[in-house]
Amino acid sequence: LRETFECELAAFLVASGTAANALALGAITPPWGAIFCHERAHVTADECGAPEMFTGGAKIIGIGGDRGKIDVDALHEALARFKARPSGHSKPTVLSLAQANECGAIYSVAEIAALSSLAHAEGMLVHMDGARFANAVVGLGVSPAEASWKAGVDVLSLGASKNGGLACEAVLFFRPTHACDFRLQRKRSGHTVAKGRFLGAQMSAYLDEGFWLDAARHANRQAARLAAGLALVPAARLAWQPEANLVFATIPRKLDRALRASGAEYYEWPASPPVPRIGSNEVFIRLATCFATTSEEIDRFVGIAARAATSGILRSRSERVTCGSRPAIQSAGAR
Amino acid sequence: LRETFECELAAFLVASGTAANALALGAITPPWGAIFCHERAHVTADECGAPEMFTGGAKIIGIGGDRGKIDVDALHEALARFKARPSGHSKPTVLSLAQANECGAIYSVAEIAALSSLAHAEGMLVHMDGARFANAVVGLGVSPAEASWKAGVDVLSLGASKNGGLACEAVLFFRPTHACDFRLQRKRSGHTVAKGRFLGAQMSAYLDEGFWLDAARHANRQAARLAAGLALVPAARLAWQPEANLVFATIPRKLDRALRASGAEYYEWPASPPVPRIGSNEVFIRLATCFATTSEEIDRFVGIAARAATSGILRSRSERVTCGSRPAIQSAGAR
Amino acid sequence: LRETFECELAAFLVASGTAANALALGAITPPWGAIFCHERAHVTADECGAPEMFTGGAKIIGIGGDRGKIDVDALHEALARFKARPSGHSKPTVLSLAQANECGAIYSVAEIAALSSLAHAEGMLVHMDGARFANAVVGLGVSPAEASWKAGVDVLSLGASKNGGLACEAVLFFRPTHACDFRLQRKRSGHTVAKGRFLGAQMSAYLDEGFWLDAARHANRQAARLAAGLALVPAARLAWQPEANLVFATIPRKLDRALRASGAEYYEWPASPPVPRIGSNEVFIRLATCFATTSEEIDRFVGIAARAATSGILRSRSERVTCGSRPAIQSAGAR
Amino acid sequence: LRETFECELAAFLVASGTAANALALGAITPPWGAIFCHERAHVTADECGAPEMFTGGAKIIGIGGDRGKIDVDALHEALARFKARPSGHSKPTVLSLAQANECGAIYSVAEIAALSSLAHAEGMLVHMDGARFANAVVGLGVSPAEASWKAGVDVLSLGASKNGGLACEAVLFFRPTHACDFRLQRKRSGHTVAKGRFLGAQMSAYLDEGFWLDAARHANRQAARLAAGLALVPAARLAWQPEANLVFATIPRKLDRALRASGAEYYEWPASPPVPRIGSNEVFIRLATCFATTSEEIDRFVGIAARAATSGILRSRSERVTCGSRPAIQSAGAR
Repeated sequence: LRETFECELAAFLVASGTAANALALGAITPPWGAIFCHERAHVTADECGAPEMFTGGAKIIGIGGDRGKIDVDALHEALARFKARPSGHSKPTVLSLAQANECGAIYSVAEIAALSSLAHAEGMLVHMDGARFANAVVGLGVSPAEASWKAGVDVLSLGASKNGGLACEAVLFFRPTHACDFRLQRKRSGHTVAKGRFLGAQMSAYLDEGFWLDAARHANRQAARLAAGLALVPAARLAWQPEANLVFATIPRKLDRALRASGAEYYEWPASPPVPRIGSNEVFIRLATCFATTSEEIDRFVGIAARAATSGILRSRSERVTCGSRPAIQSAGAR
Repeated sequence: LRETFECELAAFLVASGTAANALALGAITPPWGAIFCHERAHVTADECGAPEMFTGGAKIIGIGGDRGKIDVDALHEALARFKARPSGHSKPTVLSLAQANECGAIYSVAEIAALSSLAHAEGMLVHMDGARFANAVVGLGVSPAEASWKAGVDVLSLGASKNGGLACEAVLFFRPTHACDFRLQRKRSGHTVAKGRFLGAQMSAYLDEGFWLDAARHANRQAARLAAGLALVPAARLAWQPEANLVFATIPRKLDRALRASGAEYYEWPASPPVPRIGSNEVFIRLATCFATTSEEIDRFVGIAARAATSGILRSRSERVTCGSRPAIQSAGAR
Repeated sequence: LRETFECELAAFLVASGTAANALALGAITPPWGAIFCHERAHVTADECGAPEMFTGGAKIIGIGGDRGKIDVDALHEALARFKARPSGHSKPTVLSLAQANECGAIYSVAEIAALSSLAHAEGMLVHMDGARFANAVVGLGVSPAEASWKAGVDVLSLGASKNGGLACEAVLFFRPTHACDFRLQRKRSGHTVAKGRFLGAQMSAYLDEGFWLDAARHANRQAARLAAGLALVPAARLAWQPEANLVFATIPRKLDRALRASGAEYYEWPASPPVPRIGSNEVFIRLATCFATTSEEIDRFVGIAARAATSGILRSRSERVTCGSRPAIQSAGAR
Repeated sequence: LRETFECELAAFLVASGTAANALALGAITPPWGAIFCHERAHVTADECGAPEMFTGGAKIIGIGGDRGKIDVDALHEALARFKARPSGHSKPTVLSLAQANECGAIYSVAEIAALSSLAHAEGMLVHMDGARFANAVVGLGVSPAEASWKAGVDVLSLGASKNGGLACEAVLFFRPTHACDFRLQRKRSGHTVAKGRFLGAQMSAYLDEGFWLDAARHANRQAARLAAGLALVPAARLAWQPEANLVFATIPRKLDRALRASGAEYYEWPASPPVPRIGSNEVFIRLATCFATTSEEIDRFVGIAARAATSGILRSRSERVTCGSRPAIQSAGAR
């Protein structure tokens, strides 16, 4: 990891992304701290209160923003409003950014640097939820170092599970003093596994010869292919051009049913800001591609959508999209 | 308290409003629960994370709404969005309503009943932050029972400190089984004082012969007088007609300085929703009246505002608004 | 407080002794820390887990020792055993000493200095539970500074409630940097009362012209008088010579009943180490004197014990020990 | 798991033993509860405060007892002392027993039943730390059901990691209502892994055709062989006859050095009660056998000990005890 990130760092392996995020946040914020993040960030919306548990009750302050991204003005305003309260407020301690984020968007290096700079000026530290960090690095076309500590990130939760790993994530402290008690913090949360070599083996293979970036490049490419395909399906409206491995689209409920009947598996996504408005007969869906998604699978999915959208009728059960025993479009886990 | 509320209940005294709220919430929500409240509610915005501490890390979900009030549709939508998340969400366990609320508004009995009804249907309990409960009761013109458990409230934090007490609040459980371990919960939070009789003496005097309602009636009346006076000051814009003991107004920054120079003490309030927009040379202020506010003090405050607003000039230091050793307009504590 | 302790310090007032202890410990130990104290210390045995709550789950390690006191060897051995564990142990962060302690004993200045010195050498801080600090200071005949920071104490919970106050304790940080976030920590625990002047008034009067030391001197003297009296009662066996305001004795269960029937109020104390063994018809009792205990009350209590012990029979109800509306021997609160 | 335990149950998989214990305890005790266990139990001595973290600060009460076992009298006395405290104590909520325990001892079914019966009578639930449950089951020669719920166990942390698994433990609730929110509790602690099938695959293989019991039987047998061998080494004193897969012995420090120089890996164990007293030139060691320990390895270890003890001299580096790339005697992880 030191080689990959070209710097001194303290690294710890755990088995889940929620653990990597919550432990990282717990290491850098006290119970009376406040963590600022996008209001749709995984750490606040999808971890069942893990950051609250691991920090001992810190407050999470959600900030709005297009496509799941915080901009400097919004952060500035949130901090100002926070400090304007006459009394009784927690202490801003952490800015947490997801990269790539929950809407499949990627912060530019300049954006990260500007946000980090504001956070540091306020005495806060910067955490990056990098469950999809590999997808962001290849999307940006920069080095891992440029996408993280060189842009001001203090602690990175680096994911492998969504990108080829079995169950492995790393918490990277770019200022190792922040990790002085991390061994104890990990142990008391039950995240020190007895046979740690099985985590180490995963991370070692993951980084070896750029496997992780190749896998992410493939996933991003398949997302682009999927988006390009759906763009030609009249009934589907792409929400955003994909920047990483996630494609979001609004589709008729009927098409949703047809796709699922064909064996496709994906999430319906809550249609509240920053998601575009949808009609009452529509659903907003999230499609995740991964290291294992084949072009054939993409094409079959798009084909079914195109035909179903056109005809309004699904041909037959033999059209069922499968690939061996796996569903054709695999949602790569929970995020 | 049983007599006052005309029912069986379990009651516990503590010395601060934050303690009364946080202990109440801690008694009825587990660490993996979610507490729904207005996004500007005291429990989320002004208690430095006390509910998070006392619940062991429960999530607080802020809901928007005019003048600090949640309406049934907004609660419904928040719950729906919450449940729509594919996974990873806390369990909705509590609806917390402030009555009177942080913007000086009062929920009608029907509004409380409708919100409680929805909450109960979702398996949640209803907490009421009643730091200003007396002001609400006299504002509504109903009985304490009608304003609380008869409308569906399960646990009430009943304030005395803002309305004549020294340091005394009660936590009332209308379903006493919710309080089965409360004695332990209070003790371990350090809120069991050794000489509890000094709390008991305050609450006893507070309720005796309707003192508490008389005191609140006076405070509400003085707020109305203050609002009526300010309504005639051209430079001041009242935000809302006062319903309890709080008056909010937008005034020129210059007038703000003049009032403070005259000895007035009050809070500047963050001008973000649900607060109306203000200009760059304006400030949004919160004025609190209390059991001890005299009509003379109100009139002098309004007079200074009127003259300062007209002339733009403050006459002299002899105009300084004082009343014995107290500031003329006393902001009744921290809320 | 700075004058009284002759040094720079950061001081915060709260309303209960448990709050003063738990907040102090929470300020200087992380959740993965371990607090070493006597196994019968108030912080571990009588606060219903408050230190665990305020530290976010730190471990408390109880150490045995005569009369509630830890000695350097025992602390050394406990630390050695702790560090010998192959893995998985919390980090020793705090030594907490009660002065005067739960058995009415007082650490000498040299003992405190030796214990503090060992603790500091291990990277730990020293907390003193000073609910009875005044009694210790007059017992030792040294200055408050000599009994605290000059002997190595880093944080002192200074009690007033047991020694004349209504509900007031102070947390004193002799190294003010330890208190950098204490204002937030106090607020989020609900221990920032809105009208703090009522706490300030108590502490101010408490320290004024040595009132606190006079009150403690009186209580200690009355404990000595009580012990001297009981020493002459054949059926009673004093456990220890009193050093502060607590007297412990083993008495026949029958005498216990007679004393209580006379109106005396005191605690039966658990007869496990470091308490001497007692017979099956005996009880081990704790008698607390205070600033308000009169010599007449002491003498009546001893007289009843002497006569009851001799005759085995209580004369009549007219013998009932009362003094106005107060019980004759008042157990000064909960410790 | 339902088949194996012959009952209805709710089962959840996690990746570490500390997680399985802490989550189980967190599911059945509130923050104001008290967990009674042996003072040397893994949950209190080796998990860095995990139970405190997962329960939100519950107290752990250590009880002494020979060879790491609690007996009914000791539990009775601890509960009595606890309840005798005049005030301020947590609520006894859980009895936690390790089976086989940290000293390699096994509770008989009758002992578990008697302890459970007392605990239940006090309103407590019974947790079993079964990191070595398989070793206990084969040691007792009873069925898994007889060793657990039929003897009164309410929640079992069932280990696989020490007995052939990669990283897999199960939390079994024999009264499924105790698990009503467990899914949320696991998620917020970061122990819900995205690709749970990899945990399921381990547990499935573990239980299949009695693999788990065969593996434990082998480990127990190898421990017996090791103990029998060491019994003949004059310089070594066995602490106890092994009942499961752990052997404890006192050996001269010189022999310890010789064994380690030969490549053996094991823990030195803290020589405090219930461990027998040792001399100043001795060390107390813990030897763990496992599913993979061969008889040849045992014999070579014993042989080296015998020769070293006799001659006082280690022959040469070529004597180094290895077996492929593994140390000859593998301490199966941390417990």
